[in-house]
Amino acid sequence: MTNNTAYAQLMAFQRQTEALGLVAERLGWDQETMMPRGAAEQRGEEMAAMEGVLHARRTDPRIEDWLEAADPVDAEARAQLRAIRRSFVRATKVPSDLAQEIARVTSTAQGIWAEARARERVDEFLPTLQEVVDLRRQEAACLAQGGDLYDALIDDYEPGATADSLGAMFGRMRPRLVALREAVLGAPVPKAVKGHFGEAAQLRLARDLASTFSYDWSRGRLDLAVHPFSSGSAYDSRITTRVVESEPFNCIYSTIHEVGHSSYELNVDADYKLTPIGRGVSMGVHESQSRIYENQIGRGRGFTGFLYSEMQQRFDDFGIGSAEEFYRAVNRVQPGFIRTEADEVHYNLHIMMRFDLERALVRGDLAVDDLEAAWNDRFLADFGVAVDRPAHGLLQDVHWSVGLFGYFPTYTLGNVYAGCLYQALTAAVPDLEDRLSRGDTTEAVEWLRENLQRHGGLRTPRETVAAACGFEPSEGPLLDYLERKFRGLYGL
Amino acid sequence: MTNNTAYAQLMAFQRQTEALGLVAERLGWDQETMMPRGAAEQRGEEMAAMEGVLHARRTDPRIEDWLEAADPVDAEARAQLRAIRRSFVRATKVPSDLAQEIARVTSTAQGIWAEARARERVDEFLPTLQEVVDLRRQEAACLAQGGDLYDALIDDYEPGATADSLGAMFGRMRPRLVALREAVLGAPVPKAVKGHFGEAAQLRLARDLASTFSYDWSRGRLDLAVHPFSSGSAYDSRITTRVVESEPFNCIYSTIHEVGHSSYELNVDADYKLTPIGRGVSMGVHESQSRIYENQIGRGRGFTGFLYSEMQQRFDDFGIGSAEEFYRAVNRVQPGFIRTEADEVHYNLHIMMRFDLERALVRGDLAVDDLEAAWNDRFLADFGVAVDRPAHGLLQDVHWSVGLFGYFPTYTLGNVYAGCLYQALTAAVPDLEDRLSRGDTTEAVEWLRENLQRHGGLRTPRETVAAACGFEPSEGPLLDYLERKFRGLYGL
Repeated sequence: MTNNTAYAQLMAFQRQTEALGLVAERLGWDQETMMPRGAAEQRGEEMAAMEGVLHARRTDPRIEDWLEAADPVDAEARAQLRAIRRSFVRATKVPSDLAQEIARVTSTAQGIWAEARARERVDEFLPTLQEVVDLRRQEAACLAQGGDLYDALIDDYEPGATADSLGAMFGRMRPRLVALREAVLGAPVPKAVKGHFGEAAQLRLARDLASTFSYDWSRGRLDLAVHPFSSGSAYDSRITTRVVESEPFNCIYSTIHEVGHSSYELNVDADYKLTPIGRGVSMGVHESQSRIYENQIGRGRGFTGFLYSEMQQRFDDFGIGSAEEFYRAVNRVQPGFIRTEADEVHYNLHIMMRFDLERALVRGDLAVDDLEAAWNDRFLADFGVAVDRPAHGLLQDVHWSVGLFGYFPTYTLGNVYAGCLYQALTAAVPDLEDRLSRGDTTEAVEWLRENLQRHGGLRTPRETVAAACGFEPSEGPLLDYLERKFRGLYGL
Repeated sequence: MTNNTAYAQLMAFQRQTEALGLVAERLGWDQETMMPRGAAEQRGEEMAAMEGVLHARRTDPRIEDWLEAADPVDAEARAQLRAIRRSFVRATKVPSDLAQEIARVTSTAQGIWAEARARERVDEFLPTLQEVVDLRRQEAACLAQGGDLYDALIDDYEPGATADSLGAMFGRMRPRLVALREAVLGAPVPKAVKGHFGEAAQLRLARDLASTFSYDWSRGRLDLAVHPFSSGSAYDSRITTRVVESEPFNCIYSTIHEVGHSSYELNVDADYKLTPIGRGVSMGVHESQSRIYENQIGRGRGFTGFLYSEMQQRFDDFGIGSAEEFYRAVNRVQPGFIRTEADEVHYNLHIMMRFDLERALVRGDLAVDDLEAAWNDRFLADFGVAVDRPAHGLLQDVHWSVGLFGYFPTYTLGNVYAGCLYQALTAAVPDLEDRLSRGDTTEAVEWLRENLQRHGGLRTPRETVAAACGFEPSEGPLLDYLERKFRGLYGL
């Protein structure tokens, strides 16, 4: 076996693994969009069986031989081998039975969470959550090998990040965010949009906005989901949204957000597709794409001007008299209960709270039975409002039900990266706001594709952002942007 | 390892294989209903990777050991072992590379067929068809081991059937069908329905009719597809239909047909679900269920009376003045081009033609390049009309593009079985027509569930039908039924 043969064999093997991973992901999409309710348990078995297959492939002993024999000829090959080694080392630490049990339990747990949320019954969710926490802690113990359990889980979503480094960054961000929040909440509240926005018209607008952001419909589609998400990669990456007929921004910005995620997957270079570096490099970098589409671009003065005229053409009077008033309505700052509906000033405070709570859960410092009280206490302290019902509190997010501990902090990391990328983007495209005011996102989207998205997993997450920006990422640009935007908006 | 341990281990292993088989089937459903067009090639790779996984499991050498050690304690266990042995013997005859190549090629071939059909270009389809024929002939050669290639393929869909036995039965049926056809075509043509039947209203009716036939929506759903099909099993079996706004019976009877298929899968006893005998026992028996729902029940005098009043309430005047006239409109006999739109008198003639053509193709007696001419000649001879365009001829069916050679004859076998079951059903439920005229299908559906559907693969296909009927199945009851019905309808 020559070195080249080993590399070719390894890559052929990995290609099938990637394809099977996409199959499992498609099942997840189906579960949230199409699957009949009565299929939930069966789907759990199907997901567990797929996880068994994937785990067996990821731990296939031939991988070790191939890795040893392969001699990478260029940076791409080195990146492929790095990604494969990382996956192999991780997978071999977790027993197959445990991996399958996690897949089975989290698949059905999602339905139990959704039911409990609809019924506002925390007690009906906690036994399942306990099971999920126990399983993920077991998995973390396998992965950490004596190290920190929470770090081991974070590493799944953001290679290279640790609880300490994230916690330190959050600590630096917090005072400026709290100061901004207090200043803004002292000012008069802008007008909100008010009216009825029919589902069909909202979905038409959502489709048109996805097209505005160059979403490739030949490789995607849009459906409704309780909790919007994007799913898939390469030649098939689908988005979802939700519709509230009194509140159009929910659907609009969920859609733009998911278009950011999906575009990242669809825009990876063709050569990398269905290879280990063919996906978005990390959850944090992924979130930077959804966030910059949604916030820095989508909620900016330029783009909201375009959106205002679109909405005027499509909906009856919604009580807003000018583009400037609309810009303020889109960016109203209010201490709401729901993370996914939070404004840019509050959003990261929601994350910091979840970060602290889940770190304590995973480390064993907080019991599942005490979680709701801890949530409610912390929410009151941070937001000055008492949680009024479970769907506005502990039951609002799907993440913990499906075992996503260590995932929440990547949302704020994504915001931080988006802040850096936006600084670089505005330097590269000086007439950006002008273009966006005409609904022309092509330069922005193209800059992100060329400088970041197309590279997939070629570099580490941090290097990926640094290479696109031309500087080392930090929280500074995001905080500067937020203060500039919201002090301007509120005349502070 | 005790005998019981071996059996338990084998069944646990098979359960995961069944779950993975359902995953592959769900991908097929997605491809036909939801998948964006640009994902076709990727889906081919995904299907091939799944086939690789399934093939490896079906040929796992442990199965042989387990089969040897297991000592079945009852009829169910014996049936399970029989099904597993059959699958193992079949799978071990076919190399994994060939199985994967067939999965990959047929997945993409389906899109090529659909495109060629839309463009009416036989020449754009033939190279792909040639590839599919070659691959399936290679597979048949592995399976037949010196025997007849076509028999080897038939056995995939209808264990126990052979080209000779089917051909002999078709030969016995043909003279009576031709005589009936000639008699009917000599009589005045009944009125057809005429009007505009909007898509949304048709789909609402389709859903209501599915409910009328007790389709379990908690374990299924209805979507649109170019070529209606049902997909899945156990706790998730979905149906599809199509809508032509000038021709409501297309949607109505496609729906009822697929409800028959899906109900069979959903009604298998809970203990058998996700086991090797947890599915419909063969394609012929499957088709007997879809046909008896669609034809003997759905197109009968009783049920069409109910349907007539439903349609009167839902659609503008469609030119039919009485239930009797409606019954005749539903059952109009005409020599059309399209198999799936054929009346009960012509339907089996469409099948006999395909049976002869595909048998010749598989045996190497007919070249792919000569297939269109052979089709057109035969159609003219059998139906007295010249094919006017490829979508009305060779390009009308999806089957050959996805390699389903040996599948068509099971449609007529299904009709034959449906004839037998209907004879037994009317004996068991004397007031059947009276019930159906009120839209009450419960007794019919329950009789089929109790006597046939619930048993899954417990018995061989023929035994399954014989046990339900209380007599050995033959073509007699179907021909008697057709002659009685159509001679009555046409006053002959």
